[in-house]
Amino acid sequence: MTTTLAVDCMGGDHGPRITLAACRNFLQAHEDAHLLLVGAPAALASLQHPRARVVPATEVVAMDDPVEVALRKKKDSSMRVAIRQVKEGQAQVAVSAGNTGALMALARYLLKTLDGIDRPAIATQMPNAKGEATTVLDLGANVDCTEQHLLQFAVMGSALVSAMTGHDSPSVGLLNIGEEVIKGNEVIKKAGELLRAAGAAGDLNYFGNVEGNDIFKGTTEIVVCDGFVGNVMLKTSEGVASLIVSFLKEEFGRSPLTRLAAIAAYPVLSALKKRVDHRRYNGAALLGLRGLVVKSHGSADDYAFEQALNRAYDAARNNLLDRVQSRIAHARPLLASSAGDAQLEAATN
Amino acid sequence: MTTTLAVDCMGGDHGPRITLAACRNFLQAHEDAHLLLVGAPAALASLQHPRARVVPATEVVAMDDPVEVALRKKKDSSMRVAIRQVKEGQAQVAVSAGNTGALMALARYLLKTLDGIDRPAIATQMPNAKGEATTVLDLGANVDCTEQHLLQFAVMGSALVSAMTGHDSPSVGLLNIGEEVIKGNEVIKKAGELLRAAGAAGDLNYFGNVEGNDIFKGTTEIVVCDGFVGNVMLKTSEGVASLIVSFLKEEFGRSPLTRLAAIAAYPVLSALKKRVDHRRYNGAALLGLRGLVVKSHGSADDYAFEQALNRAYDAARNNLLDRVQSRIAHARPLLASSAGDAQLEAATN
Repeated sequence: MTTTLAVDCMGGDHGPRITLAACRNFLQAHEDAHLLLVGAPAALASLQHPRARVVPATEVVAMDDPVEVALRKKKDSSMRVAIRQVKEGQAQVAVSAGNTGALMALARYLLKTLDGIDRPAIATQMPNAKGEATTVLDLGANVDCTEQHLLQFAVMGSALVSAMTGHDSPSVGLLNIGEEVIKGNEVIKKAGELLRAAGAAGDLNYFGNVEGNDIFKGTTEIVVCDGFVGNVMLKTSEGVASLIVSFLKEEFGRSPLTRLAAIAAYPVLSALKKRVDHRRYNGAALLGLRGLVVKSHGSADDYAFEQALNRAYDAARNNLLDRVQSRIAHARPLLASSAGDAQLEAATN
Repeated sequence: MTTTLAVDCMGGDHGPRITLAACRNFLQAHEDAHLLLVGAPAALASLQHPRARVVPATEVVAMDDPVEVALRKKKDSSMRVAIRQVKEGQAQVAVSAGNTGALMALARYLLKTLDGIDRPAIATQMPNAKGEATTVLDLGANVDCTEQHLLQFAVMGSALVSAMTGHDSPSVGLLNIGEEVIKGNEVIKKAGELLRAAGAAGDLNYFGNVEGNDIFKGTTEIVVCDGFVGNVMLKTSEGVASLIVSFLKEEFGRSPLTRLAAIAAYPVLSALKKRVDHRRYNGAALLGLRGLVVKSHGSADDYAFEQALNRAYDAARNNLLDRVQSRIAHARPLLASSAGDAQLEAATN
């Protein structure tokens, strides 16, 4: 089986300079992979490879373009053409480092959401103390979520993790705050009820509430939250990791003695740096669509972008799309009934 | 001037064993400080000191007691009696490691909120790359916030930071997510407008939106967010720091050679450990009340609890209460008009 990725080579902060370098390494590492390099042919001419083909696109969605521009104006953007390759069956998955809002909107417009899913979500992996990864969603696609959305995220996250790890029923935690203070968040409480019901029905392996630190302990394999909270969590974790690394540098640079110690500790420090390197975790899946799309960090370098390509390749090889679809189909009665409840509630209020 | 702290010696996970040890060290370090040790006299008899006096209380609020039990049932709890010392002018500040919900509810009930403030907030400090601290509020007292609440947090946070650091107009950031995706969070957008207006009126030094990593960069001196997001941010930062420390241990323990390197690097590692030690930052101020209350982590050890006592002492010495009051009085027209708008909106909807 060959696996074909459509790569938006123009997107991200750096464009072809880093995307092409990543594509070259990726092709070398995966002998059965084919790439569709989407973008301006002149900018992509430097990568000649028997398993790579240029698909021309004349426009580029800028990092600060509003969603409307990406959707209605730039109809021949590299981002859009890359997603279209998936829609038309030319590629199994599309990868872009372009702006998240535009990517989500275009993916949703071109590919449509799966039955039972209102909104796609962005899922990523965070390292944990068990030496594994915790899958967290949503990471910023949806800033206002209902309890039904959180349930959908749990179903999609379970499908993602079972497709990628082979675990049949990965555990799901609901991100909450430890102590119940003054007044709970209503959406979270209702989401907890829905998730408990889904757990009881055998559609999910629901663990219960988890807190921010549980993500890094690896208490559950999946953690669901709304996109605002997820984004703050992600940026906080990057901020703390950078701060600690800068503390380490400062402390090791303090005196000739500590600089000597740094030399002795060098292999340890570089191993640590590798483990906390967020570039390793680059590549977030857009879930809930009728096609696979992977989002790379906009500021990714060639190493990081290659990780996003790897993740896209793995998703395609593991039939992520079919698995998400069948899991959602299995949970349809649940998803439909809770959505129905919401409509009923709305109608009777 | 003497400074008197009322200490809930029974609260927290460990009770008198750690609170008394902390009180002893605190008294030694502060020659002008007096302590009211609140709790069961028999449990507190081991601390005899000319500047410490036992104030008896027969009950203890348990860590998992519902707010109602603390408010309506246990009327002679050490937590309540400690706060009452502040209300009655026997102490300038109360300190407790007891459960947050109960502490907030009792403080609010006994002390009342300041004019112009709907809800008290919990403020704490996070270390940043500038070698200073970023003050973040709310940390979990309010899980559903309106834009007016966020504005009030900004005013209270500014008062706190200017009282403690002497900076006249500390900068305020609004915690948000970087890229605007699909649909913004309405409360945050409206809060941004209110904060901009307050900045223009000279009531605040408003910087604009910040992201999770900006807290640790020290982009602004104050960051405001709702209590749900703040709590997730806090727990996430603790989780990431613990994970990195455990990675370091693992890497240094990998072989005889790396264990040797650990010995060479020992002074650096212990300096680092001290810098990322969240015990140093223990002690969160409850702001917006007609009296000072400081909340310690429930799991605090004696070192951490002593930091909370230090923080309470500093708050009292710096006249934090007067400063918050006068700052709020100054911003009253703004707070009142925005609250008025909300009422108007509610009335016309």
